[in-house]
Amino acid sequence: MATLQDIGVSAGINILSAFVFFIIFAILRLQPFNDRVYFSKWYLKGLRSSPSRGGAFAQRFVNLDFRSYVKFLNWMPEALKMPEPELIDHAGLDSVVYLRIYWLGLKIFAPIAVLAWAVLVPVNWTNNTLEMAKQLRNVTSSDIDKLSVSNIPEYSMRFWTHIVMAYAFTIWTCYVLMKEYETIANMRLQFVASEARRPDQFTVLVRNVPPDADESVSELVEHFFLVNHPDHYLTHQVVCNANKLADLVKKKKKLQNWLDYYQLKYARKNSQRIMVKLGFLGLWGQKVDAIEHYIAEIDKISKEISKEREEVVNDPKSIMPAAFVSFKTRWAAAVCAQTQQTRNPTQWLTEWAPEPRDVFWSNLAIPYVSLTVRRLIMHVAFFFLTFFFIIPIAFVQSLATIEGIVKVAPFLKVIVEDKFMKSVIQGFLPGIALKLFLAFLPSILMIMSKFEGFTSISSLERRAAFRYYIFNLVNVFLASVITGAAFEQLNSFLNQSPNQIPKTIGVAIPMKATFFITYIMVDGWAGVAGEILMLKPLIMFHLKNAFLVKTEKDREEAMDPGSIGFNTGEPRIQLYFLLGLVYAPVTPMLLPFILVFFALAYIVYRHQIINVYNQEYESAAAFWPDVHGRVIAALIISQLLLMGLLGTKHAALAAPFLIALPVLTIGFHHFCKGRYEPAFIRYPLQEAMMKDTLESAREPNLNLKGYLQNAYIHPVFKGDEDDDDIDDKLGKFEDEAIIVPTKRQSRRNTPAPSRISGEDSPSLPFSGKLV
Amino acid sequence: MATLQDIGVSAGINILSAFVFFIIFAILRLQPFNDRVYFSKWYLKGLRSSPSRGGAFAQRFVNLDFRSYVKFLNWMPEALKMPEPELIDHAGLDSVVYLRIYWLGLKIFAPIAVLAWAVLVPVNWTNNTLEMAKQLRNVTSSDIDKLSVSNIPEYSMRFWTHIVMAYAFTIWTCYVLMKEYETIANMRLQFVASEARRPDQFTVLVRNVPPDADESVSELVEHFFLVNHPDHYLTHQVVCNANKLADLVKKKKKLQNWLDYYQLKYARKNSQRIMVKLGFLGLWGQKVDAIEHYIAEIDKISKEISKEREEVVNDPKSIMPAAFVSFKTRWAAAVCAQTQQTRNPTQWLTEWAPEPRDVFWSNLAIPYVSLTVRRLIMHVAFFFLTFFFIIPIAFVQSLATIEGIVKVAPFLKVIVEDKFMKSVIQGFLPGIALKLFLAFLPSILMIMSKFEGFTSISSLERRAAFRYYIFNLVNVFLASVITGAAFEQLNSFLNQSPNQIPKTIGVAIPMKATFFITYIMVDGWAGVAGEILMLKPLIMFHLKNAFLVKTEKDREEAMDPGSIGFNTGEPRIQLYFLLGLVYAPVTPMLLPFILVFFALAYIVYRHQIINVYNQEYESAAAFWPDVHGRVIAALIISQLLLMGLLGTKHAALAAPFLIALPVLTIGFHHFCKGRYEPAFIRYPLQEAMMKDTLESAREPNLNLKGYLQNAYIHPVFKGDEDDDDIDDKLGKFEDEAIIVPTKRQSRRNTPAPSRISGEDSPSLPFSGKLV
Repeated sequence: MATLQDIGVSAGINILSAFVFFIIFAILRLQPFNDRVYFSKWYLKGLRSSPSRGGAFAQRFVNLDFRSYVKFLNWMPEALKMPEPELIDHAGLDSVVYLRIYWLGLKIFAPIAVLAWAVLVPVNWTNNTLEMAKQLRNVTSSDIDKLSVSNIPEYSMRFWTHIVMAYAFTIWTCYVLMKEYETIANMRLQFVASEARRPDQFTVLVRNVPPDADESVSELVEHFFLVNHPDHYLTHQVVCNANKLADLVKKKKKLQNWLDYYQLKYARKNSQRIMVKLGFLGLWGQKVDAIEHYIAEIDKISKEISKEREEVVNDPKSIMPAAFVSFKTRWAAAVCAQTQQTRNPTQWLTEWAPEPRDVFWSNLAIPYVSLTVRRLIMHVAFFFLTFFFIIPIAFVQSLATIEGIVKVAPFLKVIVEDKFMKSVIQGFLPGIALKLFLAFLPSILMIMSKFEGFTSISSLERRAAFRYYIFNLVNVFLASVITGAAFEQLNSFLNQSPNQIPKTIGVAIPMKATFFITYIMVDGWAGVAGEILMLKPLIMFHLKNAFLVKTEKDREEAMDPGSIGFNTGEPRIQLYFLLGLVYAPVTPMLLPFILVFFALAYIVYRHQIINVYNQEYESAAAFWPDVHGRVIAALIISQLLLMGLLGTKHAALAAPFLIALPVLTIGFHHFCKGRYEPAFIRYPLQEAMMKDTLESAREPNLNLKGYLQNAYIHPVFKGDEDDDDIDDKLGKFEDEAIIVPTKRQSRRNTPAPSRISGEDSPSLPFSGKLV
Repeated sequence: MATLQDIGVSAGINILSAFVFFIIFAILRLQPFNDRVYFSKWYLKGLRSSPSRGGAFAQRFVNLDFRSYVKFLNWMPEALKMPEPELIDHAGLDSVVYLRIYWLGLKIFAPIAVLAWAVLVPVNWTNNTLEMAKQLRNVTSSDIDKLSVSNIPEYSMRFWTHIVMAYAFTIWTCYVLMKEYETIANMRLQFVASEARRPDQFTVLVRNVPPDADESVSELVEHFFLVNHPDHYLTHQVVCNANKLADLVKKKKKLQNWLDYYQLKYARKNSQRIMVKLGFLGLWGQKVDAIEHYIAEIDKISKEISKEREEVVNDPKSIMPAAFVSFKTRWAAAVCAQTQQTRNPTQWLTEWAPEPRDVFWSNLAIPYVSLTVRRLIMHVAFFFLTFFFIIPIAFVQSLATIEGIVKVAPFLKVIVEDKFMKSVIQGFLPGIALKLFLAFLPSILMIMSKFEGFTSISSLERRAAFRYYIFNLVNVFLASVITGAAFEQLNSFLNQSPNQIPKTIGVAIPMKATFFITYIMVDGWAGVAGEILMLKPLIMFHLKNAFLVKTEKDREEAMDPGSIGFNTGEPRIQLYFLLGLVYAPVTPMLLPFILVFFALAYIVYRHQIINVYNQEYESAAAFWPDVHGRVIAALIISQLLLMGLLGTKHAALAAPFLIALPVLTIGFHHFCKGRYEPAFIRYPLQEAMMKDTLESAREPNLNLKGYLQNAYIHPVFKGDEDDDDIDDKLGKFEDEAIIVPTKRQSRRNTPAPSRISGEDSPSLPFSGKLV
């Protein structure tokens, strides 16, 4: 049992370590040679280039201006300075709304913490149940338990305070959630309606085009939409199965890069011939002239590419039964995306086209029946993954003992039986299988989502996030509260009565408070502080820079800024919401720790989003209904657990009063779903019409067809300038990439973000605070 | 324990009573004075009129043609003769699809019964577990139990037969369900696409029109749709709150009827003055001249009506924030109904307009928030109704004893304490509260649906049916299997583990087989046979005819043909599906009884639909997804119970094999939902476009606006010819009622339905068997 003092010491250590991380970060980020790691966002946007070649050699790598070290925590206020509308412009709506999840945590838990400390802590503290228990039955208890509901005797009337507080917490949480949902729905609508013309506003993804004996997919699509949307159809792009072509193009790019490298080397070495070996890693094999070899290779692969491209374009089999259909107006696209086209609802499925960069190309051709089957299989697989993953891992672990190793590989016996090695292996092996599994889990979940057949990267991530959340709930939260593997829990839950389950968990809740406080500090505080160091990308960048980087392009590619990572990040935040809501009425002691986490994470991630993370796609906050739903789920779990806990405390009248809470919360959820969710699924016609009218007034002679024609070509056809003849044949695939206009061009090469946020941002349709 | 013989006797009695019902029916229906009761559908369609006044007096009332009595079961083949397309034309798609529910029962259970008797009965019979038990432990058992799974010893390998059979039954049921869903979806689409032009094809119901300070609702609606559907908007009709006006009109009609009556009497009595008393029921009060009095009264109420009408039309407060908006094409209406109009999804809600006669007018103006709250309240209320209804009823019953009566009304003491009366009361009272409650339950559920705010009668009935099904499942099925009131079950389920519940019920299932066989015979066989007698409408008609009918119009109104009554009928059928599926692998003995029920009910209801029932609305089989879903639910329940039962039989390997069944069934349900349900919710654009194109080619000069202008006026404004000035002011409310064209006019006065069905029916777009 940890005392308050223990917690204090632990908190001190964790705060200190976070502080150390920040100091290291402050030093590292000021060094020019780390510039690409800590300001990668600006490089990606083309607003910052490598440190100038001029100046002293040392200054190119190390910052010698000591004044800049003094204000080493300056990045924090800097991160908070950039106003929200500018941040949307800079990093996209997804990032901004993602930050608002942390902000939501602060808004929910700050008043709850104040209220809980003002009311519940005194109520809990002024009892002596635990002291009595100590004296009578020699039961040990910590100071923290004195602050919790455990300190209140059975049958006490004081439980009414907890019930009233549970109501207050629920009402406040729901109120904040509703306000936030409203704000974000408005932000999304405003974002969608904002100035920039985007191809996905005019385009609908059509899937499951039925096979036709007489017409090609392209003709069929054209005819169908000319007939059924006669006044609105503009153009379409069929989807090619270009996976093989994409591989070839990738290979060619690699060869080209080697060629560049050797040509550079050749120039430097004063035109000496450079020989390379062709075998594994250039270590053996026939020696040839490098430049000649690569030129020949590139030539060969270019021919292959043009052949494959010819095939993709001409072979009807490589055309997938899917197409991106564009309309003359946003109104018509909105209509087509929201309606059913034919009497068979598994054919001609229409949905909003995702952003071009958000499309997950290889899933576009999955037929309907297959989708249902895949979904079912994945549900079952996920069930087993969640509840039984520990079984194969335990099996692997049982093999991975020293005896096991010796059995399989007797030649290792000498090494293994060394005393030092033995202890290392014994300390290291047992956990390794589990840790490897947990490290790969997000990837496994992403693969499962891909198999399920989602057509956009954003929806893949949303599904993976949902599964990761469930996995965490079962295997982190529940497994920590009632110790035992998930399948044991499952078994005991199947054999327990439904009203016993909340009691079992509820009783264990107050006892686990110290554990979760430590968890929040280690995983939350230190984890967040560690995130800002970008340790892995930093090391990888310098390793690559030292050994692999051959050209400037390579250096560009050596940057690994990462992205928000919704599929892992959001479920982790949700765990803190769950902990906060569950412990608020039980052990208010935990709330300040949650608050510190949310505040710290908000600042750190805001900084990262401004300076580091790359924006991979823009789904316009399509994930918010999921976030909202999970907080509601956490709220209901907390209510059920409180019911269970008070049930065991014989607070007789509590149950009927508490049972209303989940019912009301579910009602609230339904209300929010109906009121706000459509903004995330459908596109109101009024908005579309307004925007169309505005545009036609402003640009009456806009060549929309030209604008849309190439928006949705497979990425492999983009940016190729060397096969014009094929492009002519394709007709639709032209060379210019679609440029989404950015307002930031005037600021090219602005040295540091810090100055920008001080400037006035251009007036946007957003007001600072959206209601 | 009932033996096979007992069951045989019981079956004999029930078959005999059904036979007696049929004979009585055959005699009654041939009497001309019952004509309006047994052929009311034909009267309602105007295809039959009262028996001719000519001929012998007796012949007008009694059928003296003895030859017609010989073939007294002739109505059965007659009922089956009318082909489906003609039946759709005659009684609507709803009725035909309703009949297909019984047909579905036959299709599912006939092969299952054959298979079960061929495989399961021998497997069960050739054991001696029960006999052994009889000898060893003196456990009694009946022959029926020997045919059931109870006769198989624990740990037996024979359970594999049951598992394989469970798979076979599931696969067969799912196959039939899928085929049927497909057929009915096609029927619905074909029906919607069929020749007749209907106002609801062009019309969308718009609700929650936001309040506007400057414009009236009508202007607002017009402007909104002119802006947002500029090329398609045609016209609209606002919804008036005419509930008070409707009352007044009803009152006037009644007075007019009395006036007619007295004028008739006056004419018959050779112009003697007729005096009436004004007091209660004409028993006391001031005596006045009847004709003069009623003329004055009608005059008064007419003035009131015109004043109220003026008010409804001119007072903006009486205009509800809802409107029926009509479009130029079906395509545009389909678009508007399926899309979201504004960024606030609680305003400008659009949905398909129900058929004019299907509209539930008083619910059109409920705002969105209120709807959510009402729904939540009704869910909670229904939960309590289902599980705790027995408590107030038990309380009433405890009061309704003889002692209770004497206490409340001492003056009844003499009567009550009479020995004969005492026994009557004691036999009668205890059940009366429950029986009254059960009789009123469907009405209570309908009121709950109305409160919930559905806008069409069909959706009201669907919701009521869902609730009635749940109620039956809990209070008939579960309460019979594990005897005890619902709330006791609820309590025991809350305290039992989830995998114990199927066991508890599963074990009880085979023991209740005889009870349910009797139930099927009494409630099913005799109930269906009783339905054809139309006893209540028959008695009511003759009572009204004798005492109340004053004019020919009254006689028209004295007919009470009733309707299918989806809200009570369908849940009752579902109980038989549930019983059949649950008992198929357990006690196959029950299946033939189910089959007889479905066959009998099919014939009887087909006859009733052709000859008796009135069609109140046409929802184009919108209820089928509910029917499908409930059969799936019954299937899953049956699988879980079988799992529970085999679990107690220690059929160790059974569980993992059976657990896949519900998972697969749920997967199948999701597939069907995605594949077929959209046909019942959305209207494909291709269909709409096809129909529009056809129509514009056929009738290029159609005045659609004229056709649609009055389709959706409140029924109270329809058919009034006496207030033309007001109508002019209203502008939109004209007198002619919308006539949905019928092909049957050429058959006016066809004497009996029997001849019709023999004729060739006009060729319809339906083929006899739709796939």
